[in-house]
Amino acid sequence: MSRRTPPVAELVERARDGESRAVARLISLVEDESPLLREVMAALAPHAGRAHIVGITGSPGVGKSTSTSALVTAYRATGKRVGVLAVDPSSPFSGGALLGDRVRMQEHATDPGVFIRSMASRGHLGGLAWTTPQALRVLDAAGFDVVLVETVGVGQSEVEIAGMADTTLILLAPGMGDGIQAAKAGILEVGDIYVVNKADRDGVQNVTRDLRAMLALADREPDAWKPPILKTVASRNEGVDEVVEAIEQRLEWMRGSGVLEERRRSRARDEIEAIAMTALRSRFGHLHGDARLDVLAAKVAAGSTDPYSAADELISAL
Amino acid sequence: MSRRTPPVAELVERARDGESRAVARLISLVEDESPLLREVMAALAPHAGRAHIVGITGSPGVGKSTSTSALVTAYRATGKRVGVLAVDPSSPFSGGALLGDRVRMQEHATDPGVFIRSMASRGHLGGLAWTTPQALRVLDAAGFDVVLVETVGVGQSEVEIAGMADTTLILLAPGMGDGIQAAKAGILEVGDIYVVNKADRDGVQNVTRDLRAMLALADREPDAWKPPILKTVASRNEGVDEVVEAIEQRLEWMRGSGVLEERRRSRARDEIEAIAMTALRSRFGHLHGDARLDVLAAKVAAGSTDPYSAADELISAL
Repeated sequence: MSRRTPPVAELVERARDGESRAVARLISLVEDESPLLREVMAALAPHAGRAHIVGITGSPGVGKSTSTSALVTAYRATGKRVGVLAVDPSSPFSGGALLGDRVRMQEHATDPGVFIRSMASRGHLGGLAWTTPQALRVLDAAGFDVVLVETVGVGQSEVEIAGMADTTLILLAPGMGDGIQAAKAGILEVGDIYVVNKADRDGVQNVTRDLRAMLALADREPDAWKPPILKTVASRNEGVDEVVEAIEQRLEWMRGSGVLEERRRSRARDEIEAIAMTALRSRFGHLHGDARLDVLAAKVAAGSTDPYSAADELISAL
Repeated sequence: MSRRTPPVAELVERARDGESRAVARLISLVEDESPLLREVMAALAPHAGRAHIVGITGSPGVGKSTSTSALVTAYRATGKRVGVLAVDPSSPFSGGALLGDRVRMQEHATDPGVFIRSMASRGHLGGLAWTTPQALRVLDAAGFDVVLVETVGVGQSEVEIAGMADTTLILLAPGMGDGIQAAKAGILEVGDIYVVNKADRDGVQNVTRDLRAMLALADREPDAWKPPILKTVASRNEGVDEVVEAIEQRLEWMRGSGVLEERRRSRARDEIEAIAMTALRSRFGHLHGDARLDVLAAKVAAGSTDPYSAADELISAL
């Protein structure tokens, strides 16, 4: 069966009309690093900048998928259109993200006001940092009011996601050594809202107390956002409306304080830089049919020059 | 107390004489992204390219620290000098790597033939990809015969480490759902030697059987290296000599097949490119006192241009 891509303008129009297949096709173009991307992004540009991008992260087992699903339900009750992007940073090779634990999301599968997509960060051009912002741009321009970006908090992924979101939710759960996890992963510097899920379990008081103590130590400006700590039992939808409320309050605060505008500019900056760097890297590859970089690499490997001098030479050849 | 840095040439000479403090100082210059780095790398260049760089990775709890320590003991029994670099990819902010579980390494602390260093991948300039190769270059030039680079296998860190090592050991252990972990993290494409640690536990047969089945599915050239599967109880030093033997066999094979030379050139290529890209990125930042990128970012945020067109403009301003 042929997978002819319709003209970009038509795809964008259909995506904006709420057609899930068109949205999916645009995100596939991002994932495939299609040569059409440039045209896609130009067509999306006038429509972007409206969605509230909400990052959701936490250690494995805290209930991210359940919480995301519960948030979708709560948002749908208010009539808002919701996009969900589940990014799997542990799939550098596979190409397709694992959907095993996303079964819960199926309850939203037939709702036209919800779009759900899993994405592997294959990392050809820099992983999360390259594909995620462009996929978010698709969902934003397609007219979703809220876009939830969910990723497991391992390595630096939560820090990266926080850099791409307007608001970052950090999920924790009792009995997982979260205090140490939190301190270790630096999540205290990126969370805007803290949610202690599985709050019907033993140890919930310890988690909130530790979290409160650690947040109290953070060095914040007097007029900075004060991250609230909320409790949920997402599997029973308990406390989820309060999380939505906190997200909306955060959005109001960001609008009023200018932080929203500032964050979006800073993200655009990162995105432009990433695209420019990728373009330059591909030029390195093509310099003199690839030979110059190879010659320099052989010299460095042989010890007859060092990598800094080689880099100087490479740049001057641009 | 003043931390005056001795002249680079003197530091390099002392490091090559086996003085641990000089090696440590050179690695600190790497971690601190010192302006002296360029000079350091030039001084190291003629001495690099001799060490066997061995990556060690695996999920949390498989016994990486214990295994690394046992490998150091085994290598020391053969008279070889061993460097250990423990990279913690989960510490983007802290600056100092967590040393909590490194207590076992203490038994080597007084051995002048062993150098051990923990390093956080703070990620200012790209994390693992930036600091680790330069730290490895220091240890290599300082004359260690073997350099063990240990990192926890989360996110893409094991793939990154594999790209920096000559030989990559993947550690697994029974009872940790390793089959799924292996498939998910793509470690089957980067392992050169598989070690099932804690082989005195139940389930060791399942792990080796699953591993064997998965490796059999891999699409390898007929003359490619065939990754062995070994069993250890690192806490009792059982099976560790066999691992050392496999590592040495792998080195021989790489030398004979030309893979060693090829890998080292490819790494040098990556290193040159990373340094060149960093230099170019810093030029973007300084273009017209930063204003041009800010103006472009504001336009993208406002939807009046798209990131690709903005990137074009940025590059043409270089």
